Amino acid sequence: MELSELIKTTQVDNVLLSRPLGPPVKGTLCITSHHLLLSPQPGEGEEELELWLLHRNVDAIEKRFASSSGTITLKCKDLQLLRLDIPGMEECLNIANSIEALSSLDSVMLMYPFFFRPEGLKLEAGWHLYHLEDYFQPIAADTDAWRLSAINRDFTISPTYAPLLIVPKCMDDESLRACASFRHGGRFPVLSYYHKRNGTVLLRSSQPMTGPNGKRCKEDEMLLSAVLDGGERGYIIDTRSTQATKQARIRGGGTESKANYPHWKRLHRPLERGRLLQESFIKLVEACNEQSLNMDRWLSKLEASKWLSHVKESLSTACLAAQCLEREEACVLVHGSEGVDTTLIVTALSQVILDPDCRTLSGFQALIEREWLQAGHPFHQRCARAAYSHSRLKHEAPIFLLFLDCCWQLGRQFPFSLEFNERFLSSVVQNAYASEYGTFLCNNERERCLCQVREKTHSLWCWMNRPSAHRKFLNPLYRRNPLVIWPSVEPQSLQLWKGFFLQWILSTEHLTHAQAEICRFVNFSAEALQLTTATVARSELQEMENSREDSISRCVFSP
Amino acid sequence: MELSELIKTTQVDNVLLSRPLGPPVKGTLCITSHHLLLSPQPGEGEEELELWLLHRNVDAIEKRFASSSGTITLKCKDLQLLRLDIPGMEECLNIANSIEALSSLDSVMLMYPFFFRPEGLKLEAGWHLYHLEDYFQPIAADTDAWRLSAINRDFTISPTYAPLLIVPKCMDDESLRACASFRHGGRFPVLSYYHKRNGTVLLRSSQPMTGPNGKRCKEDEMLLSAVLDGGERGYIIDTRSTQATKQARIRGGGTESKANYPHWKRLHRPLERGRLLQESFIKLVEACNEQSLNMDRWLSKLEASKWLSHVKESLSTACLAAQCLEREEACVLVHGSEGVDTTLIVTALSQVILDPDCRTLSGFQALIEREWLQAGHPFHQRCARAAYSHSRLKHEAPIFLLFLDCCWQLGRQFPFSLEFNERFLSSVVQNAYASEYGTFLCNNERERCLCQVREKTHSLWCWMNRPSAHRKFLNPLYRRNPLVIWPSVEPQSLQLWKGFFLQWILSTEHLTHAQAEICRFVNFSAEALQLTTATVARSELQEMENSREDSISRCVFSP
Repeated sequence: MELSELIKTTQVDNVLLSRPLGPPVKGTLCITSHHLLLSPQPGEGEEELELWLLHRNVDAIEKRFASSSGTITLKCKDLQLLRLDIPGMEECLNIANSIEALSSLDSVMLMYPFFFRPEGLKLEAGWHLYHLEDYFQPIAADTDAWRLSAINRDFTISPTYAPLLIVPKCMDDESLRACASFRHGGRFPVLSYYHKRNGTVLLRSSQPMTGPNGKRCKEDEMLLSAVLDGGERGYIIDTRSTQATKQARIRGGGTESKANYPHWKRLHRPLERGRLLQESFIKLVEACNEQSLNMDRWLSKLEASKWLSHVKESLSTACLAAQCLEREEACVLVHGSEGVDTTLIVTALSQVILDPDCRTLSGFQALIEREWLQAGHPFHQRCARAAYSHSRLKHEAPIFLLFLDCCWQLGRQFPFSLEFNERFLSSVVQNAYASEYGTFLCNNERERCLCQVREKTHSLWCWMNRPSAHRKFLNPLYRRNPLVIWPSVEPQSLQLWKGFFLQWILSTEHLTHAQAEICRFVNFSAEALQLTTATVARSELQEMENSREDSISRCVFSP
Repeated sequence: MELSELIKTTQVDNVLLSRPLGPPVKGTLCITSHHLLLSPQPGEGEEELELWLLHRNVDAIEKRFASSSGTITLKCKDLQLLRLDIPGMEECLNIANSIEALSSLDSVMLMYPFFFRPEGLKLEAGWHLYHLEDYFQPIAADTDAWRLSAINRDFTISPTYAPLLIVPKCMDDESLRACASFRHGGRFPVLSYYHKRNGTVLLRSSQPMTGPNGKRCKEDEMLLSAVLDGGERGYIIDTRSTQATKQARIRGGGTESKANYPHWKRLHRPLERGRLLQESFIKLVEACNEQSLNMDRWLSKLEASKWLSHVKESLSTACLAAQCLEREEACVLVHGSEGVDTTLIVTALSQVILDPDCRTLSGFQALIEREWLQAGHPFHQRCARAAYSHSRLKHEAPIFLLFLDCCWQLGRQFPFSLEFNERFLSSVVQNAYASEYGTFLCNNERERCLCQVREKTHSLWCWMNRPSAHRKFLNPLYRRNPLVIWPSVEPQSLQLWKGFFLQWILSTEHLTHAQAEICRFVNFSAEALQLTTATVARSELQEMENSREDSISRCVFSP
């Protein structure tokens, strides 16, 4: 199919674009295979008023017709609301139908990243930034207890796992095969994070398929036993309730029994995923968009959405995992049912809490690559629709958004400790839902290989790391903090991520200016320091630097 | 009475002090006439762990006794919670009784400000910083329509008004006397703010005493008519509901009728004061202090407290007054019943919105002096108890706190436009409730004169303006913004003032550090700039300065 066949009207003049912030713009609307463009009439406005919208970003379309014109409201996955007043009923209908068709393509290969060829970027750049091997190899070398395994190189062991895994050294590939057949989707326990400070490890997997009769797997028990050093104790954090694990047994699933895994203590910390989480997202966005609410109604809608409860539960569970590793000095295995959703929130978030390397811009990108993309979070399914779509939802859920929201909460509580800023997190969400880059395409590495994503699309990281973009994503106050950052998870400490959820509704112009101004002061300080070096007596300079160092060292926090 | 008679035990050793943040401290507890002191045992801790607490700051005391010891919980007006474990039941009881007696003295002359004699501060300094005359004189000179009147010099016209007032030039003192007898408490309409940009004025008064039969007062009508220039229209903002004004008529009060004040349009914007507002404060503080709440319960308690609704309503009404003045170019009169509570929130807040002079540190102090202290807000009554007291409340209400919370919201929305920071606002609240300084003593200027507050106590402003304190209260990002700052009053835009309400509960250490770090960068930039001046080629410097100026000019916002 040619995408151009779906375009019934390519161009309409005198279209009026309105959005909550900013002035309305009149101009010419064009529909291309991947974009909707609106160019202001000459003299009407500057270039910045031009609209370039990926069809893929459109979550829902609403149409209203008057006698000879029509209004289309585009509700975007990045939560933006755009209204187009289009002269001519037929044109309006054609435009709406075209966008509807072009925004809901299911074939990955037809998506824009396969056609996007920006100048100055090389296709292969960015795809080799974060190799699993580079992360796993030092762990294997350091510990002598883990080895890299290519058992899943052709994705036959687990279609959702990466081709390279890190597993206990004593487990040969044959045993791993047995373990895989005992775990949902072949996701047997693998290493997710090695806590250097005390040598404990964080593992993740899917549920064991014990079924109603309590089936066992010697190799699986052996694997988990091998992780513990003799008499040590480990913790299994199951992200489902005990009730849910019982129900899972009827469908062949289950959890690790005390009898068969005697050294592992199971903790149940139910985290919502799937439909209920998606509904929470929808309700929150509805509340955010509602105008002229009174305060009571806003707070009660915010509460009813339960979004902040999900944030709190996710952070609490990640803290629990981190505490087991850091304070109890115990190994931890995390899983729910399939091990591709809430499991990853817990493993990824606890790494941000524990590991300063994950708090740098590149370290955080590597974490997303490792714990979300390679770990098989089904981005294509989860982010197919966002909060506005009326279509019956199947696999959609804002799991990844919830993770990034939790990271934002960490950044707010520890303003020095994350190298990246809110804008970076927001941009990552947007790219997960609709992007020019191939990074978040498909559901797992297997699909990405089939579609040749690495060969045929550009990497988001490559674009984000160009100096011009990079600068915008940095937290000017960042100082590497070697300590664990224990967040407060009291409800009083958490708050709505307004910079994301209200970004198109409330003017955050002044706050953005404040950020820019702080950046400027920081850069100015650095520049002035350089400039002065050459000319001012060494001693004076030293004094100034010392006074700065003082303040920095005082900003290192204890947990 | 000698205060020392109220002290039954002056000293107890081995008292353990615990508080939500920070480590417990063991030491010697001493009770003096005005303070409770706890000095850590030698070697136990540094000086910073020492506790100095004004008895006046204690809002409520809770006692619990075990066999041979007791526990006292001190709930302070600044919202701090302190627990003292005291060995010896009799000692514990004595201490509790002493604090109870010393914290609830009703006689102003016995309070600490009359005894506080810090080194290096002169008694008279600070009291002459903000003379009403200095503020009124230029207005009288500029407009030729207003004159200063000393009619209330001996407080016989209105016991709650200042001795100096600014009134329409055409009204002689005889007519003013008639007006005063027609208004509740003698508070006839006076000028509160002159909006230079277009010559409109903001007036405030108390309700007219029309009573059930619609009594009139020619002079009052004349006064309000004189304010308007011929055919112009003015707005009366009544801070009560229409229902409440009707009820007020039964008790002799009322409001301006359309018939008798034909050029004034009345708008009712009911704002809560008194008991309901105090209960809102109590509920909010209860919710803040409650631990291990889940998210739903926290949000529903936050909603149930209605505090943020009061913030929203106050800000909205102040915006309305500001809009009438700035956009409608109309004069505005604000009053409720007595004109000493919600009236002042509206007049003071609209000045912060409209007038850049009120957004400087000294301008804001002058505003508090003019619109709260001299305008007769009964601080002694309103701040006698805060959110913890169980005693039957009579006149307590957090009106002034509500005003400062609204100012905090303005500062959050306009991070460049207020010269002072959150710490300053928080410190002002604390001093209004319990202070070493005389500024917030008594209910009005008349009482302050009777008690010789100016002669016998120190001024808070004098202390706050010493360079060492002053620095701490400044917003490092401040740039004078000549424009009106129109806040968003959408509920989504407002938020809980955590830096005040949760200051003793959540560790804001990191946020404080972030603020300090920003300050340091700003100061460093400034210093570096100075340092460079002497040594670097002029041209380079100019370039740097320009690039800074650029950023500053870009930060001037349009409404």
